[in-house]
Amino acid sequence: MHVYVMKMHTPAPAAVGVVGAAGYTGIETLRLLARHEGVSVRFATSQREAGAPSGVPGLRLSAPGEVDPGDLDVLFLCVPHGKAVGWAERARQAGTRVVDLTADHRPGSGREALAVYGLADLSPAPVRDAALVANPGCYPTGVLLALEPLAAEGLLDTTSPVVINAASGVTGAGRSPRRELLFAEVAGDYRAYATGNVHRHLHEMRALLPEIQLLFQPHLLPIPRGILETIYLPVANGVDAIRIRQAWTERYASNPTIRVNPEGLPSLSQVVGTDLLALGAVDNEGVGSAVVTAVAALDNLGKGAAGQALQNMNLMLGFPPAEGLRC
Amino acid sequence: MHVYVMKMHTPAPAAVGVVGAAGYTGIETLRLLARHEGVSVRFATSQREAGAPSGVPGLRLSAPGEVDPGDLDVLFLCVPHGKAVGWAERARQAGTRVVDLTADHRPGSGREALAVYGLADLSPAPVRDAALVANPGCYPTGVLLALEPLAAEGLLDTTSPVVINAASGVTGAGRSPRRELLFAEVAGDYRAYATGNVHRHLHEMRALLPEIQLLFQPHLLPIPRGILETIYLPVANGVDAIRIRQAWTERYASNPTIRVNPEGLPSLSQVVGTDLLALGAVDNEGVGSAVVTAVAALDNLGKGAAGQALQNMNLMLGFPPAEGLRC
Amino acid sequence: MHVYVMKMHTPAPAAVGVVGAAGYTGIETLRLLARHEGVSVRFATSQREAGAPSGVPGLRLSAPGEVDPGDLDVLFLCVPHGKAVGWAERARQAGTRVVDLTADHRPGSGREALAVYGLADLSPAPVRDAALVANPGCYPTGVLLALEPLAAEGLLDTTSPVVINAASGVTGAGRSPRRELLFAEVAGDYRAYATGNVHRHLHEMRALLPEIQLLFQPHLLPIPRGILETIYLPVANGVDAIRIRQAWTERYASNPTIRVNPEGLPSLSQVVGTDLLALGAVDNEGVGSAVVTAVAALDNLGKGAAGQALQNMNLMLGFPPAEGLRC
Amino acid sequence: MHVYVMKMHTPAPAAVGVVGAAGYTGIETLRLLARHEGVSVRFATSQREAGAPSGVPGLRLSAPGEVDPGDLDVLFLCVPHGKAVGWAERARQAGTRVVDLTADHRPGSGREALAVYGLADLSPAPVRDAALVANPGCYPTGVLLALEPLAAEGLLDTTSPVVINAASGVTGAGRSPRRELLFAEVAGDYRAYATGNVHRHLHEMRALLPEIQLLFQPHLLPIPRGILETIYLPVANGVDAIRIRQAWTERYASNPTIRVNPEGLPSLSQVVGTDLLALGAVDNEGVGSAVVTAVAALDNLGKGAAGQALQNMNLMLGFPPAEGLRC
Repeated sequence: MHVYVMKMHTPAPAAVGVVGAAGYTGIETLRLLARHEGVSVRFATSQREAGAPSGVPGLRLSAPGEVDPGDLDVLFLCVPHGKAVGWAERARQAGTRVVDLTADHRPGSGREALAVYGLADLSPAPVRDAALVANPGCYPTGVLLALEPLAAEGLLDTTSPVVINAASGVTGAGRSPRRELLFAEVAGDYRAYATGNVHRHLHEMRALLPEIQLLFQPHLLPIPRGILETIYLPVANGVDAIRIRQAWTERYASNPTIRVNPEGLPSLSQVVGTDLLALGAVDNEGVGSAVVTAVAALDNLGKGAAGQALQNMNLMLGFPPAEGLRC
Repeated sequence: MHVYVMKMHTPAPAAVGVVGAAGYTGIETLRLLARHEGVSVRFATSQREAGAPSGVPGLRLSAPGEVDPGDLDVLFLCVPHGKAVGWAERARQAGTRVVDLTADHRPGSGREALAVYGLADLSPAPVRDAALVANPGCYPTGVLLALEPLAAEGLLDTTSPVVINAASGVTGAGRSPRRELLFAEVAGDYRAYATGNVHRHLHEMRALLPEIQLLFQPHLLPIPRGILETIYLPVANGVDAIRIRQAWTERYASNPTIRVNPEGLPSLSQVVGTDLLALGAVDNEGVGSAVVTAVAALDNLGKGAAGQALQNMNLMLGFPPAEGLRC
Repeated sequence: MHVYVMKMHTPAPAAVGVVGAAGYTGIETLRLLARHEGVSVRFATSQREAGAPSGVPGLRLSAPGEVDPGDLDVLFLCVPHGKAVGWAERARQAGTRVVDLTADHRPGSGREALAVYGLADLSPAPVRDAALVANPGCYPTGVLLALEPLAAEGLLDTTSPVVINAASGVTGAGRSPRRELLFAEVAGDYRAYATGNVHRHLHEMRALLPEIQLLFQPHLLPIPRGILETIYLPVANGVDAIRIRQAWTERYASNPTIRVNPEGLPSLSQVVGTDLLALGAVDNEGVGSAVVTAVAALDNLGKGAAGQALQNMNLMLGFPPAEGLRC
Repeated sequence: MHVYVMKMHTPAPAAVGVVGAAGYTGIETLRLLARHEGVSVRFATSQREAGAPSGVPGLRLSAPGEVDPGDLDVLFLCVPHGKAVGWAERARQAGTRVVDLTADHRPGSGREALAVYGLADLSPAPVRDAALVANPGCYPTGVLLALEPLAAEGLLDTTSPVVINAASGVTGAGRSPRRELLFAEVAGDYRAYATGNVHRHLHEMRALLPEIQLLFQPHLLPIPRGILETIYLPVANGVDAIRIRQAWTERYASNPTIRVNPEGLPSLSQVVGTDLLALGAVDNEGVGSAVVTAVAALDNLGKGAAGQALQNMNLMLGFPPAEGLRC
């Protein structure tokens, strides 16, 4: 009854590689690449787990010294922060384009001039031709995509600080063993960290939103993954939640990776395991100065890392922007 | 080698009873009463689980119709909100003093004039002779004990709202089965609820802090118990975290149930399973208008319910304030 | 650079519907159907949530009374146990084939003669032409696929009982609110249930393995999903773990939904979120009578429910067996 | 109204110290000692956290080199396995009695002859005068206390192995950072470990139950604490669950730290946070050879470590056996 679909004239898939494929970000990047029909994963490295299965059928993890960053279309750097600079340099010399998921080329790193900042939903054009893309941090992704359209339309009262109460699952802290990340330490706990408005992701946020005062307080959630940022917006005269949603909807109308909730605030369960960003806003009763409460929710390993990395790769290689993503 | 201690001249213990002893608040109240050497639990009721063990050795749960609220020193009401009024009335007629853990006699209930508001750490005197004590809500307990000393000393800039980003474990929502409280719904999720600055605990907070604008946004944490309130304080000119801590320390110097962290912000794990409130404050870099970030952490079933109820009982019966508490 | 793939001569997709699409099994079935390129979901019903989004873009949940089971290729029944009989009858009269995910037509139901038992990995042939398929229970799926090849080859000592110590996440108990499934009850707990070798899934296991004595003890795990069955196999003379693995490997060589671990025992994390069954076996030192310990791990909502339902549908409609599954 | 209790003729409290007080076992031991009215904690050491608060009011952690094991009544060793031998030797030379919570002097260590095995519920007498007590392992505590009374009365069929399917929370694996104990690895997972009947706790079990064949398979639960051992008992002719319970009840009648469930099987939540062992047994339908399923549940840090250590100390110092324990 059913004749099965046939594909014709498929071009050769793009060749990609992943360095640091045994960390949480690397595992997720590899998982998405394996699902993407337009690419072929040539290698995935891990210093510590070389020889072990990579999670992609038929592909074992290689030692970093065994692989050649040349002869690839795109190389993904998922190494710990501070270890990406050398790899990016080697790739550049070999003519391979790079998506760097570490902080090493982001605003505030001192090397931001070498890279295009890959916040693809806001400025895709420069990414298309970039040789080196700095993939944004997980926290800034939610904050910037939420605030930029509001700032651009003058909807915020910039004389007051925007308070960002953020909460993240523990994969955001990486996979290196540390006591404070042990199951028995995290389960049943919840705490603020990087107190005093000093989290290094602030550099990224401030670089892109210089006119806004940001007060950013992250917290650690007892869950594996997901970021939910509750953002208290001091709004300009006459601005309410409807107007905020309208600004988002207009900006992201044709973007399948961003959902604006028609009412209420999104929850983490709406986005964990996806490459989506969900946005919502509500008005508040009984406060003299007008404050709208917004929420940006995303999976720190999805839209906050691997999902956005693939979105950048899609732009670089000419695929549809959300190809291979979980939307 | 060791002669064991002997006690002499112990007076008869006070007689207490618990209505609604199969909910989370009732179970915890009963657990604390069973540890308290100065009281004897005469009965514990549960409509649904009458006949089952109460958790206190030798005491089974009674049906509500079987017990007599007279002939007690103190009756604890742990029934669902809305069910305490009749019990309080019956106890009053029988001459029994009452600690009501429901919202039924709190500010905003319309019946607050009938009761003393039992925020014992701030105003213990009226509790001592009260016939009916309205035990404060879990969220207001943290907010009020954190803010009142600051407001009293004029440390806050009252022209800006205080943003309270609160997060609570699920026992705060009670033990009646609801889909959104099922394990598979809550695990791995985190979400805002009661959005729009409308949570009913706001009445309590506003009644005691009428001069401060409050923006209160609660969230549901995937943990059984504990409340952590991150409070963004717009401070008056020259006020910093050291000054905030000083105000708390002076007020609560001799109070064993309140801990002021000498530096940093407390975590939930510091207070879960205890009857403590932990307070902390930090300064923030790089925001134009001065904002100090404070945290109030408590166990919603401990200091936020049963612990505070026993503290009130201790005042009513002349015990040391922290007798029987987990400090 | 990349010409994107073109598809030619795609036949019309098969029409499917889901009854009971707001329970955990229904949600997962709908999710898999939405990913399957060969089918089109015509409706998804929920008595309680009619009108709400279904999770499939563009499809809202219908009230059960609004839908017509005729004019479909396959209808999936994900209603609570006991509610499937009427739907199956209506579908039969309308000429629609049915995959029933409830226990209503499984061995032991009294209605098993009306249906083909859909343990597709063991006997796919009868499923192809079945009008009504009884989708196996989650626990029996693991037990039967593990034991049947061993029994068939005479590898077990049938004079001793096979002890099956099973553990399941809470979605296995359904989505109807019950106190014992609340987050605060389950978190941090672990317990045996259905004690005394009386779980209703035993009927299914015994019907297919009449010659083996089964001792089945399920436990509730504080996790949302996943089943891990630790099976203590009394083995025939000379049989060891290598021989057990060989029997599995031979039977399931070409089956992409079953993985035999080359060494060691699989963990839940290997299978949660997939439609795989993972099998492993190890020898034991220092016990007189030979016992091999085996583990069968699967996602109760994947291979244990929705995954297997789609596998049955694939057989019924002529798709490749693992089409649309997460292997 | 209430005259408060007075104590007279209190002897000087016993002097105790804890080495390794920043691990999970050490923290719990210190917590219990702080509650115990008959002892005074003189020091608590931690190599890594010297100078930090110990959790006991007024006591900071000391560096191991700063403390003197002499001049104490009892020294508790909570160091990692392998590190206790030197401390025990130093204490012996200083005339200080020792409770060693590590495996270093347990059966199978090669040093068992130097110590009394402190399974106090079975053989308290030798503990009273012991200079060095080897505190039992967490798994053996449940298994031995469950099986010994049954073996002693000949209730087991010793020709078949006793299958012990054990599951433990992660604190059982210690507090040293290891990747497989990270929150994001453990949450949502469940797995067997130490496969092949080779767990080192087997030595202890076999030393005390040489006539019984034991098949012991531990699993890791995604919870912080608690052990639940499901034990499949091949029973002698005519023996049923009632008879099993009777054997336990007779043996442990006057023991406040052991609860025999009158029916059904205990759950973890019954014992977590306590120093209890809970036992239960049920018959099984429909298996040819008679098998009774038993469960032993305990907190690995309570009865399985610190609780039992205090029980041993109570015997050594002449306190009531359950003094200071959470029963």
